[in-house]
Amino acid sequence: MATKHENLVSWLRDAHAMEQQAERMLTAQKERLHNYPKLRTRIEKHIEETLGQRETLERALTRLGSEPSTLKDMSGKLMAFGQAMGGMVMSDEVVKGAMSGYVFETLEIASYTVLIAAAKAVGDTQTQQDCEAILQQEIAMADWLREHLPELSQAFLDRSDTPGLEAKR
Amino acid sequence: MATKHENLVSWLRDAHAMEQQAERMLTAQKERLHNYPKLRTRIEKHIEETLGQRETLERALTRLGSEPSTLKDMSGKLMAFGQAMGGMVMSDEVVKGAMSGYVFETLEIASYTVLIAAAKAVGDTQTQQDCEAILQQEIAMADWLREHLPELSQAFLDRSDTPGLEAKR
Repeated sequence: MATKHENLVSWLRDAHAMEQQAERMLTAQKERLHNYPKLRTRIEKHIEETLGQRETLERALTRLGSEPSTLKDMSGKLMAFGQAMGGMVMSDEVVKGAMSGYVFETLEIASYTVLIAAAKAVGDTQTQQDCEAILQQEIAMADWLREHLPELSQAFLDRSDTPGLEAKR
Repeated sequence: MATKHENLVSWLRDAHAMEQQAERMLTAQKERLHNYPKLRTRIEKHIEETLGQRETLERALTRLGSEPSTLKDMSGKLMAFGQAMGGMVMSDEVVKGAMSGYVFETLEIASYTVLIAAAKAVGDTQTQQDCEAILQQEIAMADWLREHLPELSQAFLDRSDTPGLEAKR
């Protein structure tokens, strides 16, 4: 049993750990990308957004009398996610990377959707509005990745099929 | 370096491993769910769809002169994903479960989006059409889960806040 307030705080801490993981994954991806400049530029933009989101979550936790956990269960789970996805670094790295980026964005979309419901249930309008604003950024990034996936796959397949061109990153 | 045909076959095998993992995860979720009958019913429907999708992928691989791998790298990665998500079985299990179901659906959406591009690049119209049909089922399931997430979170929060009610599953 837990109060709505306790669940909200717990989910905000999950989201904070998730954004830290997002920052690590996006930075690692960005640094490896060479031949797909459009994707790299979009990732750079989203890293900036991610930093702002983390700060917003920190303010929400402070308002609710809590703070980000330094080591919460969720972190470990997300690290496993990162390893599962990060482990996909292989011959089709750029495609798997964009896929995993999209999938991680949808984890964020799910998290903020749940947080908005929880903030509403508690009557915390500020947190609700903050999460609604972040959700729009996550949706925009997820949509961008999904919409560019066919074009990126095509570019990868062409490079992969051409002697002398590096395709994977 | 790899031909387009080789990349298509490799991605079809990834998708086949993914559908096997989907079947395992959905079945495990369904069996644990008690207090959220609408979610359980939707999962049951999608398990049926998932079995059909796996068979469609097997036919595509046979057509292309290949077969499903019994143990491919992707399986291991997906198992890590399953564990990462499965490990979320905790006090808010039903919410994390629906979130992870949604996230897994979007992995499937990404996979079929890439496969459609690859089938097009190879000129394999049958595989392209099959993957387009599967993609629609995955989108429908992902949309259902995302749309029901606020209502499900609300139901969980209410149960969790009520003495004597089991909330988590």
